[in-house]
Amino acid sequence: MILVHHLRIGRSLFTVWLLEELGLEYELKIYLRHPKTGRAQEDLRQAHPLGKSPVIEDGDLMLSESGAITSHLLDNYDPDGTFAPPASDRNARAIYGQWLHYSEGSAFAPLLLKLILAREAKPHPPMVSGFAAQEVPLQLGYIQDFLDDKPYILGDKLQGPDFGIGFILQLAQRLGELAPYPALEAYLARMTARPAFQRARERAGE
Amino acid sequence: MILVHHLRIGRSLFTVWLLEELGLEYELKIYLRHPKTGRAQEDLRQAHPLGKSPVIEDGDLMLSESGAITSHLLDNYDPDGTFAPPASDRNARAIYGQWLHYSEGSAFAPLLLKLILAREAKPHPPMVSGFAAQEVPLQLGYIQDFLDDKPYILGDKLQGPDFGIGFILQLAQRLGELAPYPALEAYLARMTARPAFQRARERAGE
Repeated sequence: MILVHHLRIGRSLFTVWLLEELGLEYELKIYLRHPKTGRAQEDLRQAHPLGKSPVIEDGDLMLSESGAITSHLLDNYDPDGTFAPPASDRNARAIYGQWLHYSEGSAFAPLLLKLILAREAKPHPPMVSGFAAQEVPLQLGYIQDFLDDKPYILGDKLQGPDFGIGFILQLAQRLGELAPYPALEAYLARMTARPAFQRARERAGE
Repeated sequence: MILVHHLRIGRSLFTVWLLEELGLEYELKIYLRHPKTGRAQEDLRQAHPLGKSPVIEDGDLMLSESGAITSHLLDNYDPDGTFAPPASDRNARAIYGQWLHYSEGSAFAPLLLKLILAREAKPHPPMVSGFAAQEVPLQLGYIQDFLDDKPYILGDKLQGPDFGIGFILQLAQRLGELAPYPALEAYLARMTARPAFQRARERAGE
């Protein structure tokens, strides 16, 4: 059975959601953030040297990096290809990979800066806050433009990359950055309304 | 033929290196950073809405995210599987995916903060600089521990993830952060000494 090391509250909820969409059995090991710093604590570092989440264990495999976890789960537990284009469709597969890498590879860092700056005393450092102020709308605008009027990022169906982008949009919403993007708010609401997401939230205690 | 949108100096050198290792023909379109801000300029945004590099064009496919570009090139132009484990080796494939995601998904953000802070007036903001001071050694130490005494990150052979990690180590070196990690310095030197890397550097003008 798959074990998820789940740091509450954070991106591993979206791994749990994928497990629910796949109908897999899994166990959760729940970790709490430090009440003052908001960061993971020593217990999670005992489980994985980076002390980050999600990390999963699948048999003798221990795996980190949320995008790689999504790929692994879909490569092995989605035999009908419900959540990924077939390997034979070369261009679709490349774009699927692009968006799988995009959420942590490009979108996350500016939001992380916003998160850190929220704990920084004013006045905010001009280079850091200028970078975040420029990059957050660049990334959110890019997602909204690519989403266009599709229900999910790659088209009509929920696919692997939606799980990572769902995390990005939820974080952006929590930081008060999502309101200027009504199409992204609607997309996030569409994801979180899914029964599998509701089950994940209940199970993960978020 | 593959076209690489190459922003000088930066991570796209490592995509060019992969193309050289694969022996593929390619064209380079070279962009320069703004001399004062060090950031990409409007010309690159004309090529791709995020204005980042690398971006490649392969026929009618335009692809961004360096890890996804590596995957795409290896999925399509490495028929003997020189740079990736076979899809049938499930655990090796998962760990390959983890390290492919790792460089931009975990290692880059703390170095980006160091890069921005280098342009920030002193005194540095305590939350931001504290985060970077804690996370940079955490990430570099993690890479060094996993590398152990192997010549490349996954073992004896150069594989897909080395290209992204090479960029991370080169950036860390440029920021003066690599000296406490002699095994990582040796690993970076081993990569940059390869004839294909030398050809990439010459062609890319770096």
